Amino acid sequence: MTYMLRLCATAALLAAGANCLAADRIGNAAENNLDVPSEQGIMVGFPPAPENLITLQNQGGPRFVRWSIMHSASNFPTARVSRGTNSISPLPQGRPLDVESIQTRDDNGNPISMREFYRRTGLDAMLVLYQGRVVFERYLGDMRPTTLHGMFSCTKSLVGTLAATLAYEGKLDLSAPARRYVPELAASALGGATLQQLLDMRANYRFGDDIHQSGSVQRIFHQALGVMPRPKDYNGPDGAYALLMSAQPAGEHGTGPFRYDNGSTQALGWVMQRATGKSMSQLFSERFWSPLGAEQDADMVLDVKKAEWTAAGMSANLRDLARFGEMMRLDGVFNGKRIVPSEIVADIRKGGDKAAFAASPSGPSRPGGSYHNQWWINHDAYDSYNCAGHYGQRVWIAPKGEAVIVQLSTDLGEASAQEPLRQRTYRAIVEALRRTAGNPATR
Amino acid sequence: MTYMLRLCATAALLAAGANCLAADRIGNAAENNLDVPSEQGIMVGFPPAPENLITLQNQGGPRFVRWSIMHSASNFPTARVSRGTNSISPLPQGRPLDVESIQTRDDNGNPISMREFYRRTGLDAMLVLYQGRVVFERYLGDMRPTTLHGMFSCTKSLVGTLAATLAYEGKLDLSAPARRYVPELAASALGGATLQQLLDMRANYRFGDDIHQSGSVQRIFHQALGVMPRPKDYNGPDGAYALLMSAQPAGEHGTGPFRYDNGSTQALGWVMQRATGKSMSQLFSERFWSPLGAEQDADMVLDVKKAEWTAAGMSANLRDLARFGEMMRLDGVFNGKRIVPSEIVADIRKGGDKAAFAASPSGPSRPGGSYHNQWWINHDAYDSYNCAGHYGQRVWIAPKGEAVIVQLSTDLGEASAQEPLRQRTYRAIVEALRRTAGNPATR
Repeated sequence: MTYMLRLCATAALLAAGANCLAADRIGNAAENNLDVPSEQGIMVGFPPAPENLITLQNQGGPRFVRWSIMHSASNFPTARVSRGTNSISPLPQGRPLDVESIQTRDDNGNPISMREFYRRTGLDAMLVLYQGRVVFERYLGDMRPTTLHGMFSCTKSLVGTLAATLAYEGKLDLSAPARRYVPELAASALGGATLQQLLDMRANYRFGDDIHQSGSVQRIFHQALGVMPRPKDYNGPDGAYALLMSAQPAGEHGTGPFRYDNGSTQALGWVMQRATGKSMSQLFSERFWSPLGAEQDADMVLDVKKAEWTAAGMSANLRDLARFGEMMRLDGVFNGKRIVPSEIVADIRKGGDKAAFAASPSGPSRPGGSYHNQWWINHDAYDSYNCAGHYGQRVWIAPKGEAVIVQLSTDLGEASAQEPLRQRTYRAIVEALRRTAGNPATR
Repeated sequence: MTYMLRLCATAALLAAGANCLAADRIGNAAENNLDVPSEQGIMVGFPPAPENLITLQNQGGPRFVRWSIMHSASNFPTARVSRGTNSISPLPQGRPLDVESIQTRDDNGNPISMREFYRRTGLDAMLVLYQGRVVFERYLGDMRPTTLHGMFSCTKSLVGTLAATLAYEGKLDLSAPARRYVPELAASALGGATLQQLLDMRANYRFGDDIHQSGSVQRIFHQALGVMPRPKDYNGPDGAYALLMSAQPAGEHGTGPFRYDNGSTQALGWVMQRATGKSMSQLFSERFWSPLGAEQDADMVLDVKKAEWTAAGMSANLRDLARFGEMMRLDGVFNGKRIVPSEIVADIRKGGDKAAFAASPSGPSRPGGSYHNQWWINHDAYDSYNCAGHYGQRVWIAPKGEAVIVQLSTDLGEASAQEPLRQRTYRAIVEALRRTAGNPATR
């Protein structure tokens, strides 16, 4: 296949071969976390068998979700995040790292293979950049270099980076309440939260009856947008705007623990769209994808009223996410071009309120961590921080490790269960890179 | 704006300026054919006013159709026609041609300005290649270099070129009936038509009751796919496959006049997908967009059952369509790479059955013309031929004029009404280019 040849032709050491391996299959197909949709007949054939046809009703189900994650635009209306008309920026190859020979450890300290890591985290693709060069690039199953993979809440970190940039430019005041930009939010509990509170997930409000059951809140959110099927008697909010308007108070904003939610990010999108007169897809294109020299367009799912799913609706390919991560590692510069101010990257690295984070349900899975401007800050030896999307999406940036790791996954397990394993494994990869530092990554 | 700067920076003669003009507005906004959706508030604002919100019900209406034509993926689920991972092929700039000073003539022989031509044909964008160089590139209203514009039945010419290529490679037998590749079509009147009859629009069958009223047949086709809203009591075919299975006999295939229709092309898509095991979007990517070095992905609308709208569902940007046209002008080679066999291009240029064409409803608008392998052949002094899509989409290839003209439009008038004007104007542009041949297009 074309992409396989290309990757291999540009790899530094064909003999090492580790990052020449193209999309393939690992493990036992019965292990759901690595099931390959095309091998299961899903959407295969013209037409596919009825039981293998994706519909709005079944698209999120465990048997179909991996196909859906790789085909957002085939399930929903989308807006394009255009790569613009720039030429494609280089993503140079470095000396391949034999990632698959690296051993990592499970939560009990027992050694496990990288392939077992793939299985436990439902890996679709992974790319490792070291000192700006690709040292590992791997696609499993149906995943391809051109596949737009759902980023889910990794979308949030683009939103946060953009909001901080607009604030730096004087286009937003992060200490102002959301209602200053979206006056009709004065009628919603979200309107009184400052942009900084929204960015740091410190707004206190609820959708519907139950603030505490995240499953319930998720359901309300996704049914309102129409990305999850609605029951026949559905009478909840119709679309994201109506949902945001329905937020009820649940305490003073800025108090209490970190409270991760989708409404805050969706509200930030509304604010930025009003402040700039541009859609999120246009802003992401103008501010990120176009200046980064992305090689593929990205896209964003639209809700039932054609509003962009700002909180979690973007899909992108592996390599362009690596470009975005590398830009963050380099304090806002990529390919010789300043994309975001260094000050906002430094501020993100510094992190957020550790006590509020530790007191939250997210605390145990990230000991010592914090959250700031829609990024998860790890406060580890590498000063690492990352975006985090449902089903295991990560762009992990390790400035002091000179590394960026992008993982795209379809992890059907509990969202945060594998977080310690992921973090440990990313650090193990950086350690392996540094051990071979006598063999510099530059060719 | 970025794209304006780029176009201008690379133009040979900034002073001439004609192809440095960026997207702008021409004429009276009351002249519907040039209305600019964003100026009318359509989908403007967060959220847009209710009367300006696009829905499945209103998306095809005269007030909304220009927005819809530029946003297929925001209206319908789509499959991507990936540009792949190749670098972008050059589309070099030539000496700008002052197209807007060219005079053309209306059907009565009266001189009209090029701007009047824009108005009558509802122009969104136009690009002229002469000797392989861009001598004119113009975007009106909301149209941008990155906009994917509906190609409508221009999609058919990609289908025909692909089918001829697969036949050349021995993967299809054009003299075989469709049912050889899709056995279940034995139960449909389409199954007995040979692939060549389908390619040349010489199959005789009907959908529903009325073969003669093209409006009725169009409605049946588009409601079946779900790209046109269905009435509440709709009980017609559900999706393209069911529609194709419902075709009833209407005479012997290959007899009678040329009979332009959508079902033949949709059936060819089914045949090619079965013969190759690949979707049309994958085939278009592998065979055209990727080897051409396209600068943008294209996309294809999916029907209610996620089948690709092969007959008319592709959207693409202006410049990549120019690349495709230039490849056809160069007998199948682009950027030094053979994309399709020269023999199939020569065969398309030769054309089809002129008598069958003259006897058809299409005859009067294209005197002396013919149709072959899903292309319209003009049999003029320039050996020109073109694809033709609803609302005025054209890729016009003039081998003996060394020119390719791409026009993307939202012409709300009767489909074929402006065909003589368009052909006359394209020839006037080539004549102007040849008059300035003393000033070669090369820089």
